[in-house]
Amino acid sequence: MLSEERKHLIEEACGVFGISGNSEAANLTYLGLHALQHRGQESAGIASLDHSGVLRIQRKIGLVSEGFTEEVIETLPGNVAIGHVRYSTTGESSIRNAQPIYASTKFGQIALAHNGNLTNAEFLRKKLEQEGSIFGTSTDTEVIAHLVARSRAKDIQGALIEALAQLEGAYSLVCLTKDFMAAVRDPRGVRPLVCGRLGEARVVASEQTAFQLIGARFDREIAPGEMLIAHKDGSEKWLKPFNAQRPTPCIFELVYFARPDNEVFGRNVYETRKQMGRILAQQSGVEADLVIAVPDSGMPASLGYAEESGIRFEIGLVRSHYIGRTFIEPSNSIRHFGVKLKLAPVNSVIRGKRVIVVDDSIVRGTTCRKIIKMVREAGAKEVHFRVASPPTTHPCFYGIDTPERSQLIASSHSTEEIRKYITADTLAYLSLDGLRQAVRAEVTDGESNFCDACFTGRYPIPVGSRQT
Amino acid sequence: MLSEERKHLIEEACGVFGISGNSEAANLTYLGLHALQHRGQESAGIASLDHSGVLRIQRKIGLVSEGFTEEVIETLPGNVAIGHVRYSTTGESSIRNAQPIYASTKFGQIALAHNGNLTNAEFLRKKLEQEGSIFGTSTDTEVIAHLVARSRAKDIQGALIEALAQLEGAYSLVCLTKDFMAAVRDPRGVRPLVCGRLGEARVVASEQTAFQLIGARFDREIAPGEMLIAHKDGSEKWLKPFNAQRPTPCIFELVYFARPDNEVFGRNVYETRKQMGRILAQQSGVEADLVIAVPDSGMPASLGYAEESGIRFEIGLVRSHYIGRTFIEPSNSIRHFGVKLKLAPVNSVIRGKRVIVVDDSIVRGTTCRKIIKMVREAGAKEVHFRVASPPTTHPCFYGIDTPERSQLIASSHSTEEIRKYITADTLAYLSLDGLRQAVRAEVTDGESNFCDACFTGRYPIPVGSRQT
Amino acid sequence: MLSEERKHLIEEACGVFGISGNSEAANLTYLGLHALQHRGQESAGIASLDHSGVLRIQRKIGLVSEGFTEEVIETLPGNVAIGHVRYSTTGESSIRNAQPIYASTKFGQIALAHNGNLTNAEFLRKKLEQEGSIFGTSTDTEVIAHLVARSRAKDIQGALIEALAQLEGAYSLVCLTKDFMAAVRDPRGVRPLVCGRLGEARVVASEQTAFQLIGARFDREIAPGEMLIAHKDGSEKWLKPFNAQRPTPCIFELVYFARPDNEVFGRNVYETRKQMGRILAQQSGVEADLVIAVPDSGMPASLGYAEESGIRFEIGLVRSHYIGRTFIEPSNSIRHFGVKLKLAPVNSVIRGKRVIVVDDSIVRGTTCRKIIKMVREAGAKEVHFRVASPPTTHPCFYGIDTPERSQLIASSHSTEEIRKYITADTLAYLSLDGLRQAVRAEVTDGESNFCDACFTGRYPIPVGSRQT
Amino acid sequence: MLSEERKHLIEEACGVFGISGNSEAANLTYLGLHALQHRGQESAGIASLDHSGVLRIQRKIGLVSEGFTEEVIETLPGNVAIGHVRYSTTGESSIRNAQPIYASTKFGQIALAHNGNLTNAEFLRKKLEQEGSIFGTSTDTEVIAHLVARSRAKDIQGALIEALAQLEGAYSLVCLTKDFMAAVRDPRGVRPLVCGRLGEARVVASEQTAFQLIGARFDREIAPGEMLIAHKDGSEKWLKPFNAQRPTPCIFELVYFARPDNEVFGRNVYETRKQMGRILAQQSGVEADLVIAVPDSGMPASLGYAEESGIRFEIGLVRSHYIGRTFIEPSNSIRHFGVKLKLAPVNSVIRGKRVIVVDDSIVRGTTCRKIIKMVREAGAKEVHFRVASPPTTHPCFYGIDTPERSQLIASSHSTEEIRKYITADTLAYLSLDGLRQAVRAEVTDGESNFCDACFTGRYPIPVGSRQT
Repeated sequence: MLSEERKHLIEEACGVFGISGNSEAANLTYLGLHALQHRGQESAGIASLDHSGVLRIQRKIGLVSEGFTEEVIETLPGNVAIGHVRYSTTGESSIRNAQPIYASTKFGQIALAHNGNLTNAEFLRKKLEQEGSIFGTSTDTEVIAHLVARSRAKDIQGALIEALAQLEGAYSLVCLTKDFMAAVRDPRGVRPLVCGRLGEARVVASEQTAFQLIGARFDREIAPGEMLIAHKDGSEKWLKPFNAQRPTPCIFELVYFARPDNEVFGRNVYETRKQMGRILAQQSGVEADLVIAVPDSGMPASLGYAEESGIRFEIGLVRSHYIGRTFIEPSNSIRHFGVKLKLAPVNSVIRGKRVIVVDDSIVRGTTCRKIIKMVREAGAKEVHFRVASPPTTHPCFYGIDTPERSQLIASSHSTEEIRKYITADTLAYLSLDGLRQAVRAEVTDGESNFCDACFTGRYPIPVGSRQT
Repeated sequence: MLSEERKHLIEEACGVFGISGNSEAANLTYLGLHALQHRGQESAGIASLDHSGVLRIQRKIGLVSEGFTEEVIETLPGNVAIGHVRYSTTGESSIRNAQPIYASTKFGQIALAHNGNLTNAEFLRKKLEQEGSIFGTSTDTEVIAHLVARSRAKDIQGALIEALAQLEGAYSLVCLTKDFMAAVRDPRGVRPLVCGRLGEARVVASEQTAFQLIGARFDREIAPGEMLIAHKDGSEKWLKPFNAQRPTPCIFELVYFARPDNEVFGRNVYETRKQMGRILAQQSGVEADLVIAVPDSGMPASLGYAEESGIRFEIGLVRSHYIGRTFIEPSNSIRHFGVKLKLAPVNSVIRGKRVIVVDDSIVRGTTCRKIIKMVREAGAKEVHFRVASPPTTHPCFYGIDTPERSQLIASSHSTEEIRKYITADTLAYLSLDGLRQAVRAEVTDGESNFCDACFTGRYPIPVGSRQT
Repeated sequence: MLSEERKHLIEEACGVFGISGNSEAANLTYLGLHALQHRGQESAGIASLDHSGVLRIQRKIGLVSEGFTEEVIETLPGNVAIGHVRYSTTGESSIRNAQPIYASTKFGQIALAHNGNLTNAEFLRKKLEQEGSIFGTSTDTEVIAHLVARSRAKDIQGALIEALAQLEGAYSLVCLTKDFMAAVRDPRGVRPLVCGRLGEARVVASEQTAFQLIGARFDREIAPGEMLIAHKDGSEKWLKPFNAQRPTPCIFELVYFARPDNEVFGRNVYETRKQMGRILAQQSGVEADLVIAVPDSGMPASLGYAEESGIRFEIGLVRSHYIGRTFIEPSNSIRHFGVKLKLAPVNSVIRGKRVIVVDDSIVRGTTCRKIIKMVREAGAKEVHFRVASPPTTHPCFYGIDTPERSQLIASSHSTEEIRKYITADTLAYLSLDGLRQAVRAEVTDGESNFCDACFTGRYPIPVGSRQT
Repeated sequence: MLSEERKHLIEEACGVFGISGNSEAANLTYLGLHALQHRGQESAGIASLDHSGVLRIQRKIGLVSEGFTEEVIETLPGNVAIGHVRYSTTGESSIRNAQPIYASTKFGQIALAHNGNLTNAEFLRKKLEQEGSIFGTSTDTEVIAHLVARSRAKDIQGALIEALAQLEGAYSLVCLTKDFMAAVRDPRGVRPLVCGRLGEARVVASEQTAFQLIGARFDREIAPGEMLIAHKDGSEKWLKPFNAQRPTPCIFELVYFARPDNEVFGRNVYETRKQMGRILAQQSGVEADLVIAVPDSGMPASLGYAEESGIRFEIGLVRSHYIGRTFIEPSNSIRHFGVKLKLAPVNSVIRGKRVIVVDDSIVRGTTCRKIIKMVREAGAKEVHFRVASPPTTHPCFYGIDTPERSQLIASSHSTEEIRKYITADTLAYLSLDGLRQAVRAEVTDGESNFCDACFTGRYPIPVGSRQT
């Protein structure tokens, strides 16, 4: 799937990072966020605790490497820092909604950043407003800050726990106070969060790939419902302050979102995606001359498909490295170049061939349709589209903001109808069972130990009024 | 006095503007703020109420004309708008502290901007934090927003009144809600606030000069303690919701801060400053060849001085129009050009002459010393410095943020000591009586009906812990 | 006259600066150009000769202080530097036409910058193109570079002389080669050029005001037709390489262009302008209550007028300091604020009064008309406009690019017609004799020793095809 | 090979595009340059001929999509346009050296842009300077402009031919005059240049990939020494104005530089690279568990290697999409992340495996060494490095600016020494014969019909003083 299309879909995808106990805390957070950049490219933010105990914060529109120049990082001294990358819309509002958010409270200063989505955010917000709170942003994170500030707990750690206990939904959260850095994962463990060490320093991140870049050692996942308090003096506490719930990590992290050079939820992402491709090949084999990927997201699955089917893998589509956030299509009659600005077919590979094109998923179907058109124009004799996940029929309410249900082509069209729309000769999806097998899900009574609501509509956490 | 020096002194000087009932509301606010730009050059902000009842807001670093391009103004549709200009420090914090501030509350959305300083802001903030409020900025204005949000009043008008009733200090405030624009002046009336009409539309501003630019008609000052509610439907309410207090408008607005092409507190600014110069000439005449002004602030007083003394007025110092916010002094050995980059002496006027130099006030004395050095190097035979206000001995806590008392040269030095420091042949200040006479103050038992605490230390409103 | 209007008129106004023998050469050039900023605000450039004998050059759109940050200046090391400020149009072309220009020639590298206008530039350019030269800009300066490069002289000094000998028109030029800095003034001496010393270092500039800022000592004017060669080793040569011609310095420098804190052509600018005002008062006295100036250009003359007439001088118009290059008028119905954004009347001064308004000149008459409208709206009973120079009837072809003749109101309208157009009660210009007397011109057979072609149409240098 | 390293190596790599006869000429040039962006990312330029016959030009630092906003493109009207992308160094000089260059000559205006390098540029430049020409840039292109301008030919077409006849070296040039667009390839045909049609319009480009994006039809290569004159009226001339020479197209275009979705010199780039990989596998087989590529440049060869060897291909290194031109490494102790910011290993793929890593070439060896370190740290048991071209022993003087010979590791080290330096278990290069076979070169007496001087030191065109 193309991140171009994604851009309009995922509004709440995010990544978080935190480090405590290193004198280069903000620098390392900058690098960690760079390694998590695939989780959100629209804004980035870093908060640090300076040596006098004051929280400093910087939030910038754009890529981490664009906004965080050396001058900016120098305004963030201290041994502890947290950071965040996110999607957001343009304009001033986007900077207003960027994270970490900052709040001065009766417990002192606090900075918060999270990845996920609260299903009772609207309810809590209304309630807080009734009680006299004011909101300056439309983020879930500000709700959390208010709950902390209003807590009757005796200290900020207690207040944070009390606040989090009221949340429903998915969150992997990092928090910075003058006393500690905290990292918490919701009881369902929907979004990933891992911890490790860089020398003596404690590090946490959405994905291990951030550790790899800075040379940190991976310790383990933070467990669903677990909270780590890393004090400034180096001491740590591990808490399990919430009622236990059945964990349901997000299967779509393994399908698309996480970086392939990574383990997520104890699964090797690259190998899992290859396995999806292999099973897909078993389930929907077709005679063809070659297998190509929609780069880069379809790459591992297409290699698995090729391996299993014995059909040759080739680079049939080349991706441009020069499509930035700012690419402006020319005006007038020659608009709408769309996917052509990003992908180009390798004609010599495709010409006269029966081609299997593998991608990770289909959302609206529009990009997919353009790609098949491109492959046909390059001379393909047949185009067989293979999707390494089941039909995406339901939106996500836990942090991957797929479009409304009405815009998901598979919510209202049969596979045959989709095939016609995208103009493929054949179209096949990986079955739900195949996906579950690839991710090594444990299935009990038809329920797996992953959240796969986007494919099944079975939402493990009630989604209230937002349910379509 | 040079605004260059001011820059480091006045951190809370501001200007406000509001308009209700004109389809060009944001455009006119832009123009109004341009006319108030002398009240604050570091950031500017405009909030408007769009046609669907949603508050829009834009805040920018720099001059109004720099940040508010046509594209930005186009994001602010609607018939009602408020705006603000302010000083602030650099960095992200400055944008965070820019106004108007925005808050979503149980009463709906609200935007607030004010000019002034609350003397119980710290107390209220602590109290609000204890009650569970969070603060994202260090502005007084956020305190007001919280008080509104926490009010038990039945509607937002009641809540606003309830909130303001808790404030101590000086404020001239504009407020925008989905139902009305409000404009309020504190019961002491420390900062100016005027109202008028542009056609049918209601306009309010810190100074009439904003009306003059847009062609609006001046109606009258908003009285101390008075509140105007201008509803979207054109209806208006005038309220006096607070306990009456003895008004004490800021005398320094007349001495320096307000624009001369203006009336403030019923006084003509230009004529009042000329009168200060005339009385100064009566009080401290000296034989000399000519009178020159420190441009532009000393201009009216120097004309008055010349008129009264019969000594010829000349342009002895020329001001550069090209010193912007960004002027960077070159490095290395040739630093510290300071005042020379801004002012240049007209040698031919000064050479061989006995020169009277008139300025509005002396704060630290450093700029004054440099100017005298410059005048001497231009060949003056004698330099007689005349200050059109009394010695500035005390800081302002009501919105003109003069430096700490320890940095005010007159707080710890006699006039003779100051004369030596600034290297003048003679130095004289306008007497307190002379100043009061010039502004036509009514004096009862030694107390005038202006706040002149910066010259007397008699603070009409308690200043709590900030008192030096 | 307002520089706002000027902006559209003067396309070739410029200032030059040069320094040889100071290790802070580029820094000091930056400061010198800042002091000459009134001569051109659209682009600025500095060239320096680094320690390895390589010419470095930087040219930037905008004010010197905007484009020349510390980082930029650091790219210009060396003991010798020249600089230039100029007006130019927007877009890429403007940077292309910015000066100094750079050329690599058979004599080595050369950088050139000049103030003035060549009347045979078009002829020379055509000739050079016929001989195979290419032009990358539309500046006169590139013509000079080509003439140098094509010279058969034995060295670059000879080549420069040979090139300059072919020029007709006005120029004050600075030139940098790997061996020396040169400064030359055309044989007519139309544009100013002065030299001085900063310690041991040689400095040259369009106006002395640049020396004053950096603390340099003024030595003398560079004489018409004189050339200074300042070698890197500190040795100097003064040459008179051209056929002598009757000098005709530009009288308009004294009327408007030069800074008042200055001597130009041996005349004190401020005092000369006051004298224009005095004579104007003698020639066209009128009963009135007060004299006001159009700031800042009309200030000295209005003081002279007041002094001579005995009528009180007042500040009747206040100039905004916040009109930068970027001020964008709002769209829609409220456009065309024009002069109101820049000037504001002091109503209290003007109301009910018979007002004499003094400016230095009238070009198109449009700004003047707006100012009188403004003064009338402020309540003036009568408005008497007084112009401290004769009617501007002819364009300048020597470096002050007044508009085409057809746009000069005085070229086709009588004074009475102009009075009606600008809506003044009375209008009077300074007579030509009065102007000549004020500048202490020597007049022989009706010809003065100044160029006053803009007032008389008597062009001392043939202007070829450009003559209207 | 990583483009990161390239950045410092290739200073003259470029791409050109031209179109005549389409009303969207500048828009289409923008798109064409986007498709050629891999040939140069530091600056871009477009020149168009507007409807009044005036040449317009815009040159910008950075990617095409960054500098050429809609506003900029709108300043380039007309039916004919040429464009250029190039590498260059930072600072003002880079914009000065950007192309197309513009010149006003006796033949009228001309714009020129080329890809390549002239080996007698220095000689011609000296000669032209001796004859009185001036140079404002250090580009070869300016030399060509001077030769055109000095020509005695009767028209600009003749002048262009006369100028080009004096050149030695490699160039693929586009030229715009008020009468025609020209496209010329040097007699050796070192750099690629192709022509096609978009409807009626004539298009030319460095690579066909530019045609594919805009939907143009590929006609054929412009032959070595061939010149196309496309007149404004749609008529065309094909000329062969130069003495024929043995063509020697650049073999490195096929090895690395050209885009894989393309044909260059009649060879399919992707398939040719795969073939290099296949032959490499035949020549230097080794027992291993998997084959991985250095993305993206090593991808096709690694697929060929895997295919031939029967060893499984895997994605072992993932490339970040978020390394832009502006990535700034953090300061202090954690510098020098280098290749880690760009590439990340897929540990699960590599761990415990014997890995063959395939890249297209080795230049300095430093990046290669870092990659092997990364692969080892990811747990590889053995690392076998395979290079799909022979040792790069000599610099290119024809437009791909590899570093000086002394910096090419293979110029002074044996393969075994290089293996030790890069810490590979084994290292093998493709043989020269193998490379020639892969590109289907015709070899006569040891000389092939490609320029392979970078691998052999046999320079088909004398390189004069630049030869190391």
